[in-house]
Parts: sequence; structure tokens; C-alpha cells
Amino acid sequence: MNITLESQNTISEGDQILLWFEDEVTYLVQVEPGRKLGIHKGKPLNLIELAGKSYGSWLELEHGRALLLRPTVDDLMMKVKRESGIIYPKDAAVILMKLGIRSGSRVIEIGTGSGSLTMALASQVAPSGKVYTYDVREDFQKIAEFNLKRANLLPHTEFFLRSGNEKFHQTEVDAIISDVPEPWREVHAIASSLKDGGRVAALNPTYNQVEQASEAFQQAGFIMVEAMEILVRGILARRGRTRPEQRMIGHTEFILFAVKPQLSSNKLNNEEGS
Amino acid sequence: MNITLESQNTISEGDQILLWFEDEVTYLVQVEPGRKLGIHKGKPLNLIELAGKSYGSWLELEHGRALLLRPTVDDLMMKVKRESGIIYPKDAAVILMKLGIRSGSRVIEIGTGSGSLTMALASQVAPSGKVYTYDVREDFQKIAEFNLKRANLLPHTEFFLRSGNEKFHQTEVDAIISDVPEPWREVHAIASSLKDGGRVAALNPTYNQVEQASEAFQQAGFIMVEAMEILVRGILARRGRTRPEQRMIGHTEFILFAVKPQLSSNKLNNEEGS
Amino acid sequence: MNITLESQNTISEGDQILLWFEDEVTYLVQVEPGRKLGIHKGKPLNLIELAGKSYGSWLELEHGRALLLRPTVDDLMMKVKRESGIIYPKDAAVILMKLGIRSGSRVIEIGTGSGSLTMALASQVAPSGKVYTYDVREDFQKIAEFNLKRANLLPHTEFFLRSGNEKFHQTEVDAIISDVPEPWREVHAIASSLKDGGRVAALNPTYNQVEQASEAFQQAGFIMVEAMEILVRGILARRGRTRPEQRMIGHTEFILFAVKPQLSSNKLNNEEGS
Amino acid sequence: MNITLESQNTISEGDQILLWFEDEVTYLVQVEPGRKLGIHKGKPLNLIELAGKSYGSWLELEHGRALLLRPTVDDLMMKVKRESGIIYPKDAAVILMKLGIRSGSRVIEIGTGSGSLTMALASQVAPSGKVYTYDVREDFQKIAEFNLKRANLLPHTEFFLRSGNEKFHQTEVDAIISDVPEPWREVHAIASSLKDGGRVAALNPTYNQVEQASEAFQQAGFIMVEAMEILVRGILARRGRTRPEQRMIGHTEFILFAVKPQLSSNKLNNEEGS
Repeated sequence: MNITLESQNTISEGDQILLWFEDEVTYLVQVEPGRKLGIHKGKPLNLIELAGKSYGSWLELEHGRALLLRPTVDDLMMKVKRESGIIYPKDAAVILMKLGIRSGSRVIEIGTGSGSLTMALASQVAPSGKVYTYDVREDFQKIAEFNLKRANLLPHTEFFLRSGNEKFHQTEVDAIISDVPEPWREVHAIASSLKDGGRVAALNPTYNQVEQASEAFQQAGFIMVEAMEILVRGILARRGRTRPEQRMIGHTEFILFAVKPQLSSNKLNNEEGS
Repeated sequence: MNITLESQNTISEGDQILLWFEDEVTYLVQVEPGRKLGIHKGKPLNLIELAGKSYGSWLELEHGRALLLRPTVDDLMMKVKRESGIIYPKDAAVILMKLGIRSGSRVIEIGTGSGSLTMALASQVAPSGKVYTYDVREDFQKIAEFNLKRANLLPHTEFFLRSGNEKFHQTEVDAIISDVPEPWREVHAIASSLKDGGRVAALNPTYNQVEQASEAFQQAGFIMVEAMEILVRGILARRGRTRPEQRMIGHTEFILFAVKPQLSSNKLNNEEGS
Repeated sequence: MNITLESQNTISEGDQILLWFEDEVTYLVQVEPGRKLGIHKGKPLNLIELAGKSYGSWLELEHGRALLLRPTVDDLMMKVKRESGIIYPKDAAVILMKLGIRSGSRVIEIGTGSGSLTMALASQVAPSGKVYTYDVREDFQKIAEFNLKRANLLPHTEFFLRSGNEKFHQTEVDAIISDVPEPWREVHAIASSLKDGGRVAALNPTYNQVEQASEAFQQAGFIMVEAMEILVRGILARRGRTRPEQRMIGHTEFILFAVKPQLSSNKLNNEEGS
Repeated sequence: MNITLESQNTISEGDQILLWFEDEVTYLVQVEPGRKLGIHKGKPLNLIELAGKSYGSWLELEHGRALLLRPTVDDLMMKVKRESGIIYPKDAAVILMKLGIRSGSRVIEIGTGSGSLTMALASQVAPSGKVYTYDVREDFQKIAEFNLKRANLLPHTEFFLRSGNEKFHQTEVDAIISDVPEPWREVHAIASSLKDGGRVAALNPTYNQVEQASEAFQQAGFIMVEAMEILVRGILARRGRTRPEQRMIGHTEFILFAVKPQLSSNKLNNEEGS
């Protein structure tokens, strides 16, 4: 088993590296032929030369050194190429746990955006699960595909374009995550694709949205409907002068959670008729 | 694939069920012959009779009905049998993401306790990874084994008793989580077992602990040492009168994160001598 | 001056005392003939016997002793006799400062309730200012008068009953505080009684209320319209194990602040017509 | 009474004005002969020309208009000329209330700094009370005097230079506020000057300080020793898209409160001997 791990720890062409410098500056790069990285100290790095080195080892440079780190999903989410809003890792982490998403899960994401949350989902369901991610905008989809490919997470992801609130191609999925402005319009499509006992999360920047979404899911018969916000506060831990950080992110999303029970056919018919 | 999923969705003997009643009362139970569950309304349930039913379906009772739900790790953590302090799912969720723990990871946990965090780790590394969990107290270990077994997570976990701060039996692990009162005493053992580039988290209830732990990891050459606390605030989302909940958990843990770089043999020798 | 202060420090009939016991139990009592206080340890106290003693001195009892403290407004607010919701001192404190209320200010309060906030206002404007407090319910007014009288704050307060959203009897007041469910219905009455440059605060338990109030004040021409919430987190400061308290109040009020500028007569006429 | 208020509302030479522009830009200025204010739109203002106008009225300018506002203590604190750290109004507001400081109180401040908190104290004790403020640095004292004079609060303030932890010139004061790095060194001086039943607050940026201060006050016999932090979260209240602000101040001070009981002469002698 150690042999396997050793080989995994060797950097190959196509891999991503988080380069950490001793002044706390970091770069997220990909090992590709012909790519150079201009760094803040010293001459540009020839990235392909990093292939063969090990994650966790030091790279000696003209001025100082840098550590070669395997990026976590957290790192990827914060450094993703993006043209839409950001999903914070803290929110993604709690969503993964509250929805019970794990290796092997089949999950639908509504609102691919830049693929930031898609990466967290794909990494979680790998290797045997799958993320089906839908967006209305092809340009966002292209950016997301680029980001997932770079993170070697494409095999666990399928992309779909979708207009309006039409039904999804998958059924009996384990969980659904919505990151769209009007999640209440998705309730019927969600109810059709989510297995009984499956769980849904909806991200809402405003209280107005979380209020309307909460009501829509309750009216559709979903249970355990609850909402929350997650706050992260940095702590500067230093001998003799430890204190919280003076600035913090005060708000990202109100997250709504709900569970779909077995719904009576009456209920489903009524919904279809509405 | 649907066939597999359907069969997974059928409840079998030994499975755990989260029973949800329409008054929001829940029970976590295991399907076993001869076990009865006294409920708050109606006569006791014969649990073995739930085998063969589907997760997500309703159980009709004398008075009302109950939904049969597959518990998430979140549910398990909050309902675990325990004799030690609780680890909150929000903290576990952020630790899993920040440490990059995923299916296949090999992870050491220092401080098994009641196995609450162990369950979150085991569920995350399944099916091919492994959690090696150490505790000094055999009585805690017994409780944790009971909890992990009940959650069908025992195959992904190995339990060890350990006295003092002796080294672990594993090396080159991907991540280490410490939930002991004096994490600074574990730095050397952690450095010996963690692979280069591997990440560590330490849970600390007090400022004093997170301060001392932070200093110890920095002095040992660990990098990206940072601390934070996670706050969850419930939101009551109801038409026309949405507001945060009036009571909240104000504190659980200060979590310290650090990354182990390739350490010079000098450094390691010095540490051994100290 | 010391003489005056000494005499002030002597407890007289009618004064209120915060009795503090060494097990952290406190009682708020009034020095009256014939009143006895049953305490949790020892025989009842004859309250009139406390007259002549000094604030800050110890009262020797059969079992242990108690300290005789002059209650602050904070103490009074938390121990007020009440039949309506509580206003927290933290919210009152920030309102007093943001509205610039000080000794000599003339202030209108909309929604007397149990007089909790009225006490904070009356104490702040004393000795030369005045609080004009309005409520629709006579039973609340009675309770509030009882509370203000007991706190010797009645001379700085005038009580009014008011139905609907009719205008107030005072004009050119320095500040107005609203603690009613629909502050947006009060905007016109507020604009008529508040001096130009005067400031207003409205307490709102829900997001919906603060949103609607904010819009109403902006539409009426008020400026510097801003909203906030105040969170207080207790810290257990103890040698070697300092940490935040595990439970905290997660929500009380969203507070809206605004300033009334000189309004054009057009604006005022339009408002009157609406 | 209205006449008095009207006259108070007229701006005179020497008064301070908060100039508010419709793009939410504000300036804090003083009405003085020969002083001009360069503003972000239009030609400079001749400040003496504002004398005779009323607070709350509009000033018509070449481009748009500005409102002439009487600054609150909150405004003064945030716009003070300073060379030391800032005290936030939220913290000052809660301190004023918890210490029971009101018109007529006699208060000692340890650590004048830029006079930011001094202004809040002086405004609160006016017109008959007094703030005695001590600092070790003459340059800070000069800045503070400038700030208090500009705010017309000098009559309620006395400045003192002090080296070491020597006793204060006043006794039997109602409250003492400490904003120095080592409040535990001040406990004896505080106990000597504070009346029995008087209250003290100590501002501490780090948990280490609040822990050490808490212990020192408890050991000296102070009671009701408690610590807290105050968090303010802005709310963007806008129709249909209301949410908390995305950035907030995550930390300012841990505030320690304590009450001085009547201390036995033994206790005081012991302290003097230590």
C-alpha cells in the first residue's frame, strides 16, 4: 500500500500544485509543457519541470524556496477562474454533510456557475458517484468545464444546458443542490428527480429568497425544512496576544435544507396541474 | 444502476433508521430482531418489521405516521451514545474539507472519545480508505466501537489504545485530527506519521489551548498554521416574519489547521532529542 | 462635593437596591415599611431596616452576607416587571448613543410596553430632559408607570394613551424611538414631531419589518437610513481555560436608524394627502 | 422651552457640524473664521458663513446640496483626530450603560489616548459631572485636549499626566474605565479611588489580557466580574433583497466588568503590602 501512496504523491503532467512561499503567497498552477509561471520573487518557473517531484517537498529557488502542495477542494474553490459569484468552502462543507453526500452518491446541481461548488461535489462523490450539473448559460458552463478539467474532476461530472424550469434527465438521485435566484420555481423538478428520503439544499443570498423558498418546499410536502447561516471567524493565535481577526466575512448565504418524503400521487398530480 | 439503488434503498436487518414524526420528534433506531421501540404516541414498534420497507417511505401508525429516513453522518453525530464531549457536525464538516479528506484517504484520529468524529471520518474515507483512531481510555473505545458498528462504519476503522504520546503505528498518512486536551504534546508523533504535504487539525475548546498548539506546530516547522471558529445561526424562515433564532450555540471549538512540509533531518533529530 | 456624594450613597426609604449574594444570586428590592423579602438562604429580610445603610456595603446575615448595590439601568431593564417582550440593554445602549440622546434631551417613545426602554431613556435625559411615551394599551401603561415610579424615574417621564397613528402632542423633539410592530405607519407622525436634523430609531424583530420600515423612511425623505443588529457574546475569563460561553442570545432586534432633514413643504403636503 | 430649543438649534461660531452630502459623503467641520473646507464637489466652503444657520437645514451648493447636522458622540468618535487605536462607539455605549454612568457622575479614565472614549464619557456626565482622564504620554494628552475642545466638552473633563501605577487624585468616584495594556497593574489604584459599590470596565484587545485582568480583580475582592464582546452586523434593508452586509468588523475589544464591594481593611493592607 505504501508503494501506491508514494506514486500518488509524485507530481505528474496535468496535476495541479499549490505553490506556497515563505511569505505566505500562494499560486495554484498546472503542470503543463511550455507553461511558465511568473512569480513575485526570482525568475519565472518552467512548470513542466515540476513533474517527477513529490507533493510536500521543497523547491529551491534563486531567492528562497517554495513548497509543492496538493491543493484541497478548499484551495480550488477559492482560486477558481470565475465570472459569477463565489460559493464559500464553509458553506459547501456543511452542505455536503447535511445532505449526506459521499463517495458513490448521485447528485444534481442546479446552477453550475463557475463550477466552484461542482468541484466540491465531484470530489465528494468520486470515484463511483456522479454530479449532474445544469445551467442556463453556456458561457458559465464552458468556464466550469475548464475548472473541473484542470482539477481532474471531469470524470465525475456531467454538464447539461437547461432553459426554464424543465425536469432533469436523472431520477432517484440522492441529493439536489440549488444555487439559482428563484429556487421556489425548481420545487416541482426537484420533487420529480429526488428519491424518497433524498435531501435538498438551496443557497439564498437574501432573506427574501430563503423565506419564499422555505414556503414553497413546505407547501410541496417536503419535511425537515430548516435554514441557517454559517459564520467563520479567524483567530490569530500568537503567544501572549491571541485574539479574533479584526475583519471577517459577515455574510455569504442563507442555506435552506429539506427532505423529500414519499409523496402521495394526489400531491404529485396537483403539482403537475399547477 | 437503478436496480442497485433501489436495493440500497431497501431497509435490511442491521440498518439504522431515523424515524421522523410529524410533530418533528425523531428517533434513531436499529433494525434488530426482538427490539421494540417505545414511541411518544401509540404502542411500541417492533423494529424487525421495518426490514423490507424503503427509506423515504411512510410508516402508518395507530395515531398518525412516521417517515423512515436514512440517517446522515450529521444525524449520527448528534444522536450518538456518549460519555465524553460532543463534536459538532459543523466543525467536522469544515475539518473534512480543509484537510482534503476524501474517499480513499488514510487518516489518524487522536482521541477517539465516543466516536462521533470517527464516524464522520470513516464515512468520508469509505470504501477504500481507513481511519486509525487512538485513545488512552478503553471504556471510551468500547463506546466508540459500539457506535461505529451500529452505523456500519466499522470496516473503515481501526481502534488502538495508546498511553502517553508515543508514536503511531502508521506512517505517510494523508491527514491527522487531534481532539485531546494537550495537542502540543502530539506534534512530534504527528510529524512522524504525517506524509510531507499532509494536513493536521486540532480541536481546542479554549483560547489557551489554541495558542499553545499554534506555537508548538510553528516551532516544529509546520506551515500555513491558522485557527478559526465556526458559528451556525439558525434562521426561522416563515412568510412575513423571518428572523434568526433567538438562541444559538455561542461556542464549541477553536480549530487549528497546519500543513507539514518536508522537514530537514536536523529538525527531526532536534525534535527527537527534546 | 464629597459630602453630597456620601449622602447620595446612603440608602433611603423608597430607594431600590440590588442585593447580591456570594453565590451570584441577586434580588432587586425596594426599601418600604412592612415589606419582607424571602431569600434563598436564611430568614426573610425586613426591607425598611436597610434604610440608613450605604450602597456598596455588606449586610451580615445569618448564613453569609449580601452586598447592597445601586442598580444600574441595565439591572432595572433585566429585572423589570413585564407582560410584553423585553428590550435588551445592549440594544438600548446603542440606540442612546446613535440618537445622541443625553441629559436635557426631549424624546418621544412609541410603544411604552413594560417601560423597560422608557427607564433607559428617562435615566439618560435626567434631570432636565423629558421622555414622552405613548402606548395604545392602558394595562401596559399601568405596568410601565409602576416600573418607572419604583425606579424614581417618573419625574422625567410623561405617559400618553394613543389610538391609531395620530400625531403626538410634542413637536421639535430631539429623537424618537419606535418599538411597535408596524413602524412604517408612524413615519408621518414622526416627521411632524421630530426637529430637523433629529434622529429616529425603530426596533424590528423580523427582516420583513426592517425592510418595510427602511423603505418607508427613505420614501418620506429621511436620510442616513441604516440598519444593524447587536450581538453580545459572553467570555469566560479564567486562568488557563478562557473561552466564549457556550450559549448566547442569537437574536433580539434589527434596529433601523434614520435622520430627518428639513423637508420641503411639498413633501410634507404630499404626505399629509396620502 | 421651544425658544430655548430653537436657539440651541442655531449654529454658532465654534460649533461642530457634520456635513452630509447626498452621495453619503460626510465631513466633520468646525465653524471658525478664516477656515475653508475643500469638498469633493464644487468650490471650497467658507465655514464661518455657516454661523446663523440651523442644524437640520440644507445648504444649497453649486452642485447639489448638503445637510447641516449636529454630530452625535458616535460621529465624533469615528472622526476624531487620532494617533492611537480607536474605541468603537458600540463598546463605549455598552460601557456607559453597564457602569451606570449618567449626568452628574464622577468618572476616572485610565488611558486618555486620542480622547475618543473621553468624549463619550464627558458627554454622558455633562453638565454637572466630571471625567478625570489620565495618560502617561503628553503627546496623546495634547491630541485629546484638541479633540475635546473642538467638541465643546472640555468643561466636563480634567486631564492628568501619570507615570507608573500611582494612585489617582480623586476618591469616591462612581466608575473607572481602563484602556491600558496591563489593567491588572491598576487594580490597587482603582480600589483606592472607586467608591464602594462603584463599577469598573477594562478594555482588552486580547484574550490573554482579559484573562489576567479578570483574575487580578477577583483576587482583589471585586465581585460580579464578567467579560463580553460586542459585535455589530450591518443589515442592508432594501425591498426584495435584504441581507446582512458582506463585510463586518470581527473584533475590537474584550470588555471586562467588575464591581468593588466594601473591602475589609485587612484586604486593603495586604494589597498595599504586595
